[in-house]
Amino acid sequence: MPPVITPRTLKGFRDLLPAQALAREQVLQTARQVYRSYGFAPIDTPALEYLEILTGKGSEETDKQLYRFTDHGNRQVGMRFDLTVPFARFAAQHIGAIGTPFKRYHLATVWRGENTQRGRYREFMQCDFDTIGTTSPVADLETVLVVHDLLEAIGLERFTIRLNDRRILSGILQTLGLTEQTTVVLRGLDKLGKQPAEAVARELTGHGIPAATADRLLSLAGLSGTATDVLAGLEPLVGAAEVGQAGIKALANLFTGLAAAGVPAGRVLIDPVIARGLDYYTGIVLESFLDEMPGLGSICSGGRYDNLAGLYTKQQLPGVGASLGIDRLLAGLEECDQLEGAETPADIFLAHFDHAHVADYLRIAAALRAAGMAVDFFPEPKKLGQQLKWAGKKGFRLALVIGSDEFAGGTAQVKHLATQQAATINWHGDLAVLVDAVHSQLEAGG
Amino acid sequence: MPPVITPRTLKGFRDLLPAQALAREQVLQTARQVYRSYGFAPIDTPALEYLEILTGKGSEETDKQLYRFTDHGNRQVGMRFDLTVPFARFAAQHIGAIGTPFKRYHLATVWRGENTQRGRYREFMQCDFDTIGTTSPVADLETVLVVHDLLEAIGLERFTIRLNDRRILSGILQTLGLTEQTTVVLRGLDKLGKQPAEAVARELTGHGIPAATADRLLSLAGLSGTATDVLAGLEPLVGAAEVGQAGIKALANLFTGLAAAGVPAGRVLIDPVIARGLDYYTGIVLESFLDEMPGLGSICSGGRYDNLAGLYTKQQLPGVGASLGIDRLLAGLEECDQLEGAETPADIFLAHFDHAHVADYLRIAAALRAAGMAVDFFPEPKKLGQQLKWAGKKGFRLALVIGSDEFAGGTAQVKHLATQQAATINWHGDLAVLVDAVHSQLEAGG
Repeated sequence: MPPVITPRTLKGFRDLLPAQALAREQVLQTARQVYRSYGFAPIDTPALEYLEILTGKGSEETDKQLYRFTDHGNRQVGMRFDLTVPFARFAAQHIGAIGTPFKRYHLATVWRGENTQRGRYREFMQCDFDTIGTTSPVADLETVLVVHDLLEAIGLERFTIRLNDRRILSGILQTLGLTEQTTVVLRGLDKLGKQPAEAVARELTGHGIPAATADRLLSLAGLSGTATDVLAGLEPLVGAAEVGQAGIKALANLFTGLAAAGVPAGRVLIDPVIARGLDYYTGIVLESFLDEMPGLGSICSGGRYDNLAGLYTKQQLPGVGASLGIDRLLAGLEECDQLEGAETPADIFLAHFDHAHVADYLRIAAALRAAGMAVDFFPEPKKLGQQLKWAGKKGFRLALVIGSDEFAGGTAQVKHLATQQAATINWHGDLAVLVDAVHSQLEAGG
Repeated sequence: MPPVITPRTLKGFRDLLPAQALAREQVLQTARQVYRSYGFAPIDTPALEYLEILTGKGSEETDKQLYRFTDHGNRQVGMRFDLTVPFARFAAQHIGAIGTPFKRYHLATVWRGENTQRGRYREFMQCDFDTIGTTSPVADLETVLVVHDLLEAIGLERFTIRLNDRRILSGILQTLGLTEQTTVVLRGLDKLGKQPAEAVARELTGHGIPAATADRLLSLAGLSGTATDVLAGLEPLVGAAEVGQAGIKALANLFTGLAAAGVPAGRVLIDPVIARGLDYYTGIVLESFLDEMPGLGSICSGGRYDNLAGLYTKQQLPGVGASLGIDRLLAGLEECDQLEGAETPADIFLAHFDHAHVADYLRIAAALRAAGMAVDFFPEPKKLGQQLKWAGKKGFRLALVIGSDEFAGGTAQVKHLATQQAATINWHGDLAVLVDAVHSQLEAGG
């Protein structure tokens, strides 16, 4: 017999055990439902792409982190590091077939050879949705609505979507005469909230920006209140710059639309310092935070861009979209104990009490399943105590115990495993009665 | 401006466009629901594993097809080529935490650098489910039930599950004195149905098997009828071999259980020549075929094995499971036009007719979504004819057209896009009335 190979995963990779995988499947299914409810359709692209499709398309950092190799056919290939670059390639390749406007979502795994000391994984999922081929503000508005509906449908109770428009920042930079220093300013603003304002001010003046101008920039972070209030505060900073005025008008219209679509006031705020990336976004930008865990960072982010696929086609494809950081969100929910811990997707545990009645158990399980309930029938006639202990640990809600006495008397014992509360069902051998009673017990909780 | 990079996928890889991705998502979601209804829980494992975990675990062919490379940390790594080897590694690693019996499903992508001339892809999905840590015949039975419920839930109307037990074949080989030639015989039997019986007989006699013995072996393929008939026909071939008698008894009990659980007679047959692989399976084996497309091969296959994870742990983990070949199934359904062709997941197209009413459209779309309907609101006020043409091509079922006249009169036009049948809804500005009416129109079809 050969020696045993130590079973282990690669550094930065992990297995998902049932409780984690169930939590992730639930969020993924919610994302699918919400994206679909707005008409976004799924697509998929390969995990492997020609290396030239991937390199130089993200940041220097993503280039360095790329998993790349030479395949059997001597091709230079890489594993996708995000879903935006593959979507750009996809759009350029298929735009004739798919037409515009085109609304897609893509839930898939990406790989980055990141420094794992930061607690990051080298394999994680992204949940992107985008509308391309239109510059309509309705698409911007819909993007915010989708993010809102998604976070609500996931069951998050307290979250805030923070919105800005890159054109407002452009207008302010124009008016302050800082267009040449856009990169420096946006980098500085991005640090607000993470670093004290004084440190950011020092950084800006260190780059030759006058102290009074730096102060005006930092005053952006102090604007708060309703969208109308914040936009009024932004007007003097934007001044006569047309691009900035367009941004203000767009955000004002966006908030009118949000109200019409029934988004509660206060769920969406204007945050004038959000910029997100230096080159890519050109219109609205958005980030989303759990109110109770601001330190988690944005769990859903995105914005509008002028041109998705310029590297692969001469056809200009403007668009808008966002991405749910599902692994970050799940880590946050796990941290604050908001994940259910069940290791089983089934509500009902059917004990294997009397082996002579296997055929009856099978009939009962089939009837419960046909009524939409998930049932796990224990495969072996182990001692009942052992079976119930196992079921309790797995997180079933109800245990259904029917032994030969119960079959003879037409009864069944039901036990709510969390509370240990028990009840007797009289079903007189009528499967339909049993199914209804079990369903009622599940509904009643306990 | 740099030259445009030609957008293309690697040989043997492909994008899924919305119609294909929608069809795949539907089957995956059905698989999740059916697996869960029996208490199977999801897990996930990394796409990349240490090379030593993967090599030598499949066949020589899979070794050759393995995508392998050296990662940033100078580790030899490979991309998973199936979900069984990662599950064996997972089980060995986590068995203490997960306990037995353990029922898992795993829906994930695998990669094989196959010869694409056979029309195969190098990236495809597998949908595995397994029960490990028990030798109970109930787990075998449940495996067949899951396959049955899955194929039925996918919407396949005419399919057959073909069952055998490896122990019966072992018994026959014992009785015929062919135990030493097991490999030759199983390979030969595997070719029956694909090659004429005479060719298989020649192959067997070419390996020194007497012609009369070869004929007895080939007579296996002629056994047909009910399970009872076939088992009766197998008895003389098995003779006194105990292992074979155990197999016959197990299959007889299995068929009793299938009937108890409500599986229609004729959906599951005994096929005494199915062997599936030479070393791995030790008990029941199963394959499933679409009655109308036998040439497609088995779309869902599996069986019982004695030891899942012997390469990674000394703990013996017997189990039973099967795998849905989702890409093969979808290719088959596409070929016989059984896939719906819609490119959108939404039923309702809401025309953007009068831009002054955007807020009203948003309210209407939100109300329809709140009632569980998926609605795509066109982002731009293009000409109505263009919008309806686009909607028809995408495959929406209903178009909802409300212009300023309709808003003034409290009406709406509904059009069934497949039939071009139209109707007027009188909703008098009451959203609840509109939502109900649209819902009725959807239900009514057209």
